Amino acid sequence: MTLNSNLVSDQDLVLLIDAHKFKDTFIVKAITSKSSKLKKVGGLGVIDTSKLVGLEYGAEFEIGRKRFIVLRPDIMDNIKNLQRKAQIITPKDSGVIIINCDIKGGDTVIEGGLGSGALTLVLANIVKPKGKIVSYEISDANIKVGKTNLKNTGLEKSVEIKKKDITKGITEINVDSVILDIPEPWHVVNNAYNALKPGGHFASYSPTMNQVEKTTRELQKNKFIMVRTIETLQRELVVGEGGTRPGFEMLGHTGYVTFARKIL
Amino acid sequence: MTLNSNLVSDQDLVLLIDAHKFKDTFIVKAITSKSSKLKKVGGLGVIDTSKLVGLEYGAEFEIGRKRFIVLRPDIMDNIKNLQRKAQIITPKDSGVIIINCDIKGGDTVIEGGLGSGALTLVLANIVKPKGKIVSYEISDANIKVGKTNLKNTGLEKSVEIKKKDITKGITEINVDSVILDIPEPWHVVNNAYNALKPGGHFASYSPTMNQVEKTTRELQKNKFIMVRTIETLQRELVVGEGGTRPGFEMLGHTGYVTFARKIL
Amino acid sequence: MTLNSNLVSDQDLVLLIDAHKFKDTFIVKAITSKSSKLKKVGGLGVIDTSKLVGLEYGAEFEIGRKRFIVLRPDIMDNIKNLQRKAQIITPKDSGVIIINCDIKGGDTVIEGGLGSGALTLVLANIVKPKGKIVSYEISDANIKVGKTNLKNTGLEKSVEIKKKDITKGITEINVDSVILDIPEPWHVVNNAYNALKPGGHFASYSPTMNQVEKTTRELQKNKFIMVRTIETLQRELVVGEGGTRPGFEMLGHTGYVTFARKIL
Amino acid sequence: MTLNSNLVSDQDLVLLIDAHKFKDTFIVKAITSKSSKLKKVGGLGVIDTSKLVGLEYGAEFEIGRKRFIVLRPDIMDNIKNLQRKAQIITPKDSGVIIINCDIKGGDTVIEGGLGSGALTLVLANIVKPKGKIVSYEISDANIKVGKTNLKNTGLEKSVEIKKKDITKGITEINVDSVILDIPEPWHVVNNAYNALKPGGHFASYSPTMNQVEKTTRELQKNKFIMVRTIETLQRELVVGEGGTRPGFEMLGHTGYVTFARKIL
Repeated sequence: MTLNSNLVSDQDLVLLIDAHKFKDTFIVKAITSKSSKLKKVGGLGVIDTSKLVGLEYGAEFEIGRKRFIVLRPDIMDNIKNLQRKAQIITPKDSGVIIINCDIKGGDTVIEGGLGSGALTLVLANIVKPKGKIVSYEISDANIKVGKTNLKNTGLEKSVEIKKKDITKGITEINVDSVILDIPEPWHVVNNAYNALKPGGHFASYSPTMNQVEKTTRELQKNKFIMVRTIETLQRELVVGEGGTRPGFEMLGHTGYVTFARKIL
Repeated sequence: MTLNSNLVSDQDLVLLIDAHKFKDTFIVKAITSKSSKLKKVGGLGVIDTSKLVGLEYGAEFEIGRKRFIVLRPDIMDNIKNLQRKAQIITPKDSGVIIINCDIKGGDTVIEGGLGSGALTLVLANIVKPKGKIVSYEISDANIKVGKTNLKNTGLEKSVEIKKKDITKGITEINVDSVILDIPEPWHVVNNAYNALKPGGHFASYSPTMNQVEKTTRELQKNKFIMVRTIETLQRELVVGEGGTRPGFEMLGHTGYVTFARKIL
Repeated sequence: MTLNSNLVSDQDLVLLIDAHKFKDTFIVKAITSKSSKLKKVGGLGVIDTSKLVGLEYGAEFEIGRKRFIVLRPDIMDNIKNLQRKAQIITPKDSGVIIINCDIKGGDTVIEGGLGSGALTLVLANIVKPKGKIVSYEISDANIKVGKTNLKNTGLEKSVEIKKKDITKGITEINVDSVILDIPEPWHVVNNAYNALKPGGHFASYSPTMNQVEKTTRELQKNKFIMVRTIETLQRELVVGEGGTRPGFEMLGHTGYVTFARKIL
Repeated sequence: MTLNSNLVSDQDLVLLIDAHKFKDTFIVKAITSKSSKLKKVGGLGVIDTSKLVGLEYGAEFEIGRKRFIVLRPDIMDNIKNLQRKAQIITPKDSGVIIINCDIKGGDTVIEGGLGSGALTLVLANIVKPKGKIVSYEISDANIKVGKTNLKNTGLEKSVEIKKKDITKGITEINVDSVILDIPEPWHVVNNAYNALKPGGHFASYSPTMNQVEKTTRELQKNKFIMVRTIETLQRELVVGEGGTRPGFEMLGHTGYVTFARKIL
């Protein structure tokens, strides 16, 4: 059974969505082996994952006593379901990073601050299978959570985690992008310059304007051009029975993203 | 000389950026052949593109009598420099589409409305080399401009343009995503359903809330779940000598993007 | 003791703010009469309000066993502390209404939908003492709450509440503004026209785009000009020890306000 | 003929709006005196303003060879038509100031920086006739423009302009509000404290976050509470024939407004 099969195979990561309101989602690995097919899923209890094997993707089934739709998890499902240690970089900001850093298949990307791995997943999903994300992280707790999240999404092959302080140096050279989510990104501007290929992309995600200011001034002192910082606001448009209106809930702020490109 | 060379090769698409303010950019093909090396570039006059060959990427050179930095164009440069017939889908919205449709290497994506090809470029840049964009378009003028833009970016191999009305049917099946930018997207909901694989992604970009309403209600009548519409606002944060503040210029609106996934 | 005294007088409405974090606020009437000086205040317990009399405005005092600052309540305090039946028109939107309707001392304003009286307070505060708000409301529950809120702020003299359906007609003529917060405002456009003086201001607050559409088309069919609809987003800028950033909390949406002026 | 007459009187300030698209507006004084009735109006040429006298407010008339509606100018018309030296405080921000500073009839307000007088007009319009705006300004050019703007709107009686540097001191005491639009507002925090009555309102409008930061820290060091900064974004909702959508044009940024109240 190939990856393109429309039936769930052994070892597939499967998304279960409640077939009532389509809100609650769970990501589970389908396992036929007798010894490990039973899996405790938070909110569902223990389920026999071998029963998922052979189900048709997109169809509705009863699991336990609830009805679910079975889908392949997409990148948004993966982000929604990952374990979190710290604030993650949300999809609205990772979309901005992808397009402004021109992330594409085959890219080598250095990431400063693995965090919970939310951005790492998004990047790995796009550079794979030929490209690679190298993620520098100093916190053991983050590394543990990040590794679990990568494993749960099958993207671990495209990510190398290094327990190193990125402010102390970057080993790699000629990379396509350096992307930071650390408290003092201005200390990495010089290291990023040395790691990047000419024309390569620098990006730094920071919550405060003061961080943006320091990072920008450091980039301007170095051989970086097209230095710019972007803030993104996102809101749902809700189509209800009574009419259509913007959503009431909205994140007032996540972070600014500062971009630049290396020249010689 | 390989693609990874840091020197400009014959047939390379090269970005020239003025080395003064880093604002004006031009995309030019470097050509050694005597018969076609002279190229008229709007804003620069006629330049001998063979002189670009051998230059080092990221370095500063004199071209004509102006000084320029030579870079490989990235996807943002390509969008900025494309010929425009109609309003394009801007990078802020194509970033949202990439991540919400889980666009990745190898995907097959149906696009309804080539337009000037701005979104097409973004999608092709990510699905290439194994994936493919199939773009349905009825306007000859759009097809002409779109083809030119694709050729200028070297992404034409990953795009198939069909002169067909997507409201009349989609030939392809088992595709990963169907993405629309047409006046009456609700007429394509059923066609999109038939073309998509289970779990596949539907996206529709529309400027008005009335279009969003009709498309949403049509999706809800069909076997689509996770129906939602997103509006994105983007603004620069400007770090000036006098201090840091949000940018004065801002697009008040481009379009809403409605997303959904197919189930059986 | 006059209104301009800096000491709390008998019958003054007094704002108590906790002197620790300056977050919790309570509005209490200072009363010397023995029979009614004891007042139960939610969150504070029973307090002897006669002890407030003679305190200096702006100074810190102990009430019960907590320390408080004593201030005159301003309009923002009044809105924050009013009883709520339904969603109120928030200060960000009432500010827009004041300036776009040119509300000023002496104006006569018709309000359609008293609701909890939040906008009524704001308007009365500005038109008083010579102007007047006439508020049409059909719900007894709203009238009860609205009256309590007006009494608690001392603005009841500038407001007349009519238990009438504003879609059935407006008795007053030659008024300065008609301001609506009702489900079907398009049914009041004609009544508003008859009530307004030439050049008078129409305003309608509605959560959905569909309501805005119907109201706008009705205004355009009648002798109204300068028809426009405004959406307002507001966010705090938080100056913290670690730096300055926009606030994380933000209302994604309250309502649109549609404005127009009557001509002959 | 009284102020409440519906006919244009001698000395009335009159708004002329083109009766075609209702976009172009002109504010003209109706004058019967033979010696000064002819007035050159930019965009209209010389018109005989005595012919305006006796026209009915709200009605359409021919002036020159164009058709106009005649209205009393409201505060928005006045702001739109004032002469400008510098950036003005826009209505979206003056609305926020009115409600957060609780500006109302009878208030005494100190303004630091008259500028072109846009905010001054808005404030005077509300505090009049018993209240007063005292505006400190050091630039002769601004004073000249500001005086002209005040005269053109008939609000000059409620405004006193002082040619003084507000960072050097404020003469008035026991005032209701101090409102600043100057480059270094933190230098006025102490002066504002001395001028304000207990509970009085401080407001400062600044374009950069660095100004907000310094002002906030200075307020926190002094006896001010409820210190907060507000950013406001405003956008039109456009109801067109093809549907309803947010407006394309939008100011990305004007300024932040920092508020606080004095305690003892």
